Amino acid sequence: MRVEIIAIGNELLNGDLADTNTARLAGWLRRQGLAVRRGQTVPDRLDAIVEAFGRAAVAADLVLVTGGLGPTSDDITMEAAAAFAGEPLEEDAPTLARLKARFADRGYPFTANNARQALVPRGAVALDNPVGTAPCVLLEGQGATFFFFPGVPRELEHLIHLHLAPWVAAHADVRPYRSILLKTFGKTESSVATELAALPLDPRVHIAYRAHFPEIRVSFHADEGDAAVADALLAERREVARAALGALIFAEDEATSLVDVVAAQLTARGETLVTAESCTGGLVAAMCTDVSGSSRWFLEGAVTYSNAAKTRTLGVPEALLAQHGAVSEAVARAMAEGARERSGATWAVAVTGVAGPTGGSPDKPVGTVHFALAGPDGTRHARRRFPFDREGNRIVSAWTALDLVRRAMI
Amino acid sequence: MRVEIIAIGNELLNGDLADTNTARLAGWLRRQGLAVRRGQTVPDRLDAIVEAFGRAAVAADLVLVTGGLGPTSDDITMEAAAAFAGEPLEEDAPTLARLKARFADRGYPFTANNARQALVPRGAVALDNPVGTAPCVLLEGQGATFFFFPGVPRELEHLIHLHLAPWVAAHADVRPYRSILLKTFGKTESSVATELAALPLDPRVHIAYRAHFPEIRVSFHADEGDAAVADALLAERREVARAALGALIFAEDEATSLVDVVAAQLTARGETLVTAESCTGGLVAAMCTDVSGSSRWFLEGAVTYSNAAKTRTLGVPEALLAQHGAVSEAVARAMAEGARERSGATWAVAVTGVAGPTGGSPDKPVGTVHFALAGPDGTRHARRRFPFDREGNRIVSAWTALDLVRRAMI
Repeated sequence: MRVEIIAIGNELLNGDLADTNTARLAGWLRRQGLAVRRGQTVPDRLDAIVEAFGRAAVAADLVLVTGGLGPTSDDITMEAAAAFAGEPLEEDAPTLARLKARFADRGYPFTANNARQALVPRGAVALDNPVGTAPCVLLEGQGATFFFFPGVPRELEHLIHLHLAPWVAAHADVRPYRSILLKTFGKTESSVATELAALPLDPRVHIAYRAHFPEIRVSFHADEGDAAVADALLAERREVARAALGALIFAEDEATSLVDVVAAQLTARGETLVTAESCTGGLVAAMCTDVSGSSRWFLEGAVTYSNAAKTRTLGVPEALLAQHGAVSEAVARAMAEGARERSGATWAVAVTGVAGPTGGSPDKPVGTVHFALAGPDGTRHARRRFPFDREGNRIVSAWTALDLVRRAMI
Repeated sequence: MRVEIIAIGNELLNGDLADTNTARLAGWLRRQGLAVRRGQTVPDRLDAIVEAFGRAAVAADLVLVTGGLGPTSDDITMEAAAAFAGEPLEEDAPTLARLKARFADRGYPFTANNARQALVPRGAVALDNPVGTAPCVLLEGQGATFFFFPGVPRELEHLIHLHLAPWVAAHADVRPYRSILLKTFGKTESSVATELAALPLDPRVHIAYRAHFPEIRVSFHADEGDAAVADALLAERREVARAALGALIFAEDEATSLVDVVAAQLTARGETLVTAESCTGGLVAAMCTDVSGSSRWFLEGAVTYSNAAKTRTLGVPEALLAQHGAVSEAVARAMAEGARERSGATWAVAVTGVAGPTGGSPDKPVGTVHFALAGPDGTRHARRRFPFDREGNRIVSAWTALDLVRRAMI
């Protein structure tokens, strides 16, 4: 079954709102094993909408349309559907009755505008919308089936399950999509791709990469109708990818973040963490405390931006700062060790670097960052040179610090 | 000038990612007075991309394309552009040299995949991308001008200003959209709207509200062709709105953030700030240090998540914690005063609260947050009860802390 999506609304083409409904519909469709071939975004203009309908009907069997079903004069999706189908708009009596009852129930006045929402093209089917006013409309036109949904995401979600799901189950040869996800951190997309490109791949398995800064996501999808065979193919691929990528993989599902992994490690071991940050300026601490329950393992964070603060709060010797500069291995180590000693935590991670855009020098260019992790077995150090802007360098530095903690506990 | 937008990527049509780039481009275009006629979303499939290019070229003078310029084999936008233009792909020597230098500079291996990003259709112009690897590409084809941008929003933003802005200024009959923007913080959208609704409004001036969590943006737009008249109408409206909203307004342009305002105030006064955070967990410090040059006024941040850390690092008396609990006016004041005294900063702002979802109690429900600001004239305190989820409560708490600093210096 060939599927297309059309999103309608001036607000989607003037910068006021990003269209999330296409992704919402597409995600649901994928979970049914259906792929979307194309999306169109059109303003609330009759000719543009009718043209989009015609174009979709040529290439698709099922066309899902969102938006333009509201009660105001700029909502003209039903007019366009009528023009496209070559049928007049007619009042749908059950919908009008439902609307009037809904308004009476809430004590709202029922205006002529509101009655517009009961108009559908002759021959179309107005389906119930228990969570809003606009009906969900089903229309057969020019060889394709059209579903019209309100643009309000909450209503759309509800109507997908209420009306689209049973229709798809009855009409499409549904084949649930089987895939696996590996979330990696620490190498670029092209390096990860190079690692995996050398491994022979069954032609039924497709690989996709996605940069979800600063992580690189690798997913495998089995294009195979037999679920057991698909699962076996993916399980084999998971093992191969794990062997190739090793510790680069920090999670294998959508929901688990890097800090979730660190939190689980620390909680399981009954250990604690403190942070000592310069260039990341509190981002590592903010990531840690973003997780509910982090008070069990996160004790404290120091954002020692000035040299004086590094000395006063973490005990970094002034002489060390004078000799090596704040952005140095020696100072990173002293920050971590000072933070660990003063707090009594199991682990202390420190970050000091040049986030940019200013502050770089020939021997310490922008993007240079030193990391240190002090733990029960001593202190380890890492140095990186990041190529991003200030915000990017700060984010990837915060991730690198947390990843250092994660790898120390693998 | 007729403009269309094309977003390319399987991830946009399988539910993995909602396309925000179309809205990003459309918003920028609107501010130049240009309207977008249509958007298309296509997967990483050659025939679909080429068809979308052809369709756009028929109806538009300027076509803005995002996505599919990455280094991996599923990024085929340039192949499609070459097929569309009927030209071969050729290596762009300056881009290849830039890529190699970028990789060498960072000590990354340069792979064959990476060299793919230097391939552009013959006759196209590869423009510099100082914030990423893929070039921005300009191509004339079938009567339209195409700009190709990477799909990474951060890179897109940068390249719009670097390459698209001068091109549009030179080629389009730009009638800048005349509007003013007031960014407010501290009241809900409906409260702000209620404040302004009572004020008589010239029919040529339109008002719009936009929640850009946690700020509420109010904009006025003059629908008036004469620029001088439009400017006068907007200037009058600015005065009226300023009088009505007062200190709720923290900035009057898109670029200025709340922390920019605080940074400017502190820099002008030669004063310094430290932070003492519990429930915000470093977010206030991260906001402060997000601004380049913040080392001039931001000295230090303490993320004292545990009670022991509040005592050890900020000198909050244990008895005070035992008597009032960590989420209390007394502890917020002690945190701020301790941080100020120990650091010698002009100002110290403290936050302690219950971000949720757990940790609430009948007298301190989830969302309860205490703020204190210690300064040269003593310490002020504020208490709020926020209705959001953990993340929302943390963000609005961080903003409230910074806003307290801003208001103290007005």
